[in-house]
Amino acid sequence: MINELVKKISDLNAPVVVGLDPMLSYVPEYIKEKAFDEFGESLEGAGEAIWQYNKAIVDAIYDLIPAVKPQIAMYEQFGIPGLVAFSKTCEYCKKKGLIVIGDIKRGDIGSTSGAYATGHLGKVQVGSKSLYGFTEDFVTVNPYLGTDGIKPFIDVCKEENKGIFILVKTSNPSSGEFQDQKIDGTPLYELVAKKVVEWGEDLMGDVYSNVGCVVGATYPEQGKTLRKLMPKTYILVPGYGAQGGKAEDLVDYFNEDGLGAIVNSSRGIITAYKQDKYAKFGEKNFADASRQAVIDMIEDITGALARR
Amino acid sequence: MINELVKKISDLNAPVVVGLDPMLSYVPEYIKEKAFDEFGESLEGAGEAIWQYNKAIVDAIYDLIPAVKPQIAMYEQFGIPGLVAFSKTCEYCKKKGLIVIGDIKRGDIGSTSGAYATGHLGKVQVGSKSLYGFTEDFVTVNPYLGTDGIKPFIDVCKEENKGIFILVKTSNPSSGEFQDQKIDGTPLYELVAKKVVEWGEDLMGDVYSNVGCVVGATYPEQGKTLRKLMPKTYILVPGYGAQGGKAEDLVDYFNEDGLGAIVNSSRGIITAYKQDKYAKFGEKNFADASRQAVIDMIEDITGALARR
Repeated sequence: MINELVKKISDLNAPVVVGLDPMLSYVPEYIKEKAFDEFGESLEGAGEAIWQYNKAIVDAIYDLIPAVKPQIAMYEQFGIPGLVAFSKTCEYCKKKGLIVIGDIKRGDIGSTSGAYATGHLGKVQVGSKSLYGFTEDFVTVNPYLGTDGIKPFIDVCKEENKGIFILVKTSNPSSGEFQDQKIDGTPLYELVAKKVVEWGEDLMGDVYSNVGCVVGATYPEQGKTLRKLMPKTYILVPGYGAQGGKAEDLVDYFNEDGLGAIVNSSRGIITAYKQDKYAKFGEKNFADASRQAVIDMIEDITGALARR
Repeated sequence: MINELVKKISDLNAPVVVGLDPMLSYVPEYIKEKAFDEFGESLEGAGEAIWQYNKAIVDAIYDLIPAVKPQIAMYEQFGIPGLVAFSKTCEYCKKKGLIVIGDIKRGDIGSTSGAYATGHLGKVQVGSKSLYGFTEDFVTVNPYLGTDGIKPFIDVCKEENKGIFILVKTSNPSSGEFQDQKIDGTPLYELVAKKVVEWGEDLMGDVYSNVGCVVGATYPEQGKTLRKLMPKTYILVPGYGAQGGKAEDLVDYFNEDGLGAIVNSSRGIITAYKQDKYAKFGEKNFADASRQAVIDMIEDITGALARR
């Protein structure tokens, strides 16, 4: 799957991914009203509203980008109807030719990680049938439990030609609390990075591994170091835009070939219509505002890469 | 919620929790056949089978135990219909008077952890309504992202009188890979433990905190140390039974008052009918086999505690 992702990024010259992380407060009023009219002020109504919101954004941007990254927590907060919206969003994006990175940050002991891998990337056996539960192409994984929590994901990826991104250095302010702790002079995130490389050797694509990692845009120094430590690992970079990461800071997350990283923006794109810069589009044209924000983001990042 | 849990454990003299972690292969054939007859060999059929299986086990054991711990991965593998079975199981257990510990091991950056906390422990706002997505009393949380990934869970617990168990030292063979790494001579799991104590001070019950931790039964030496380091932290102990943890090894996870730990068994209880020891019950009486296995587990653990 990493080969497909790299090809799409190259073809579009767009090393970006859009985070479909809907809060109900992001959704234009008229979409919410219609959904609540039909399903009431209920979890079903909320699920319908975020699904319609996502669908309009995807319709407006799918031809510009290689991939989307729905954050499952934003759907899980609405219980089952929210997860139905997650599932519909994943399937719709795939129909539109997008690669779907499920930001699920799962991770557990072996047998349990196996169940997560099966549910999100693989097929589960039910009697004589093999069935997909959810249908992502990649998922994010938490490494705290070590190799036997990762291995089942790798096994399923091998069978299904899929991939994972493992948390190495996250974008949030307190990520350093444990991740930066030094073990014989080496920060924990580097130890994790070394393991990511090792795990990834078993799942190589043409140039890059199907085992990628997550390094936040908010820590450019660490990004630079990690890029060198793991040259064949694709880096999924959250934290651009709303969280404070800037394009000039991100050039060092890329290899000399201009590949090796994919930068995510969520709020910056999906709530563009609420930002001064794109206010002229108005609420009714929120999806067009998102399209313009994607164009600007791609220009911002490819521009910074061209200038380096 | 920790007060309620402690009271139930004391009243029943049963520091145990049953893991409702169904694999389809655990479910007796006649239950699967009935479910597949009704819903086909589909995700819905699988969801129905594990729900009926859970329900029968809960009916047979609910009066013996304070709590259950459904592992959400086992449901998530069947997609939406699996999660419907998870949700029904949680609600049914609560109706039966059981405390529900959702083993979800979530954890993300602040705003995203907030969505998980809302979805599993709190209420989400939809228009003028406040609604529950899922309905656990406690959930397990992964600490790798640090304080701002934990704080939103604590905020919701405060509002809702609920609690969390944070992973400190997990039961799996490779848990040491990162968790045992030494920072200035102190293993990472101890640093996490110190943070757990700090986070928990903000959420104290009468004696114990609503912020508990997870320490695997398979690492009794570490369990002993951690017990002393965090005297007011309840320890959720997975790994007893099928994973190899023995009752005699677990006495040091408890305080002198006989409290402070709750030991989980999943496969040991829910697949009792497949074990030689309980084979006499037969497949039809699988739930009675589970009941006997619960009685034996309680005896095993309280016996070891009495002998220390």
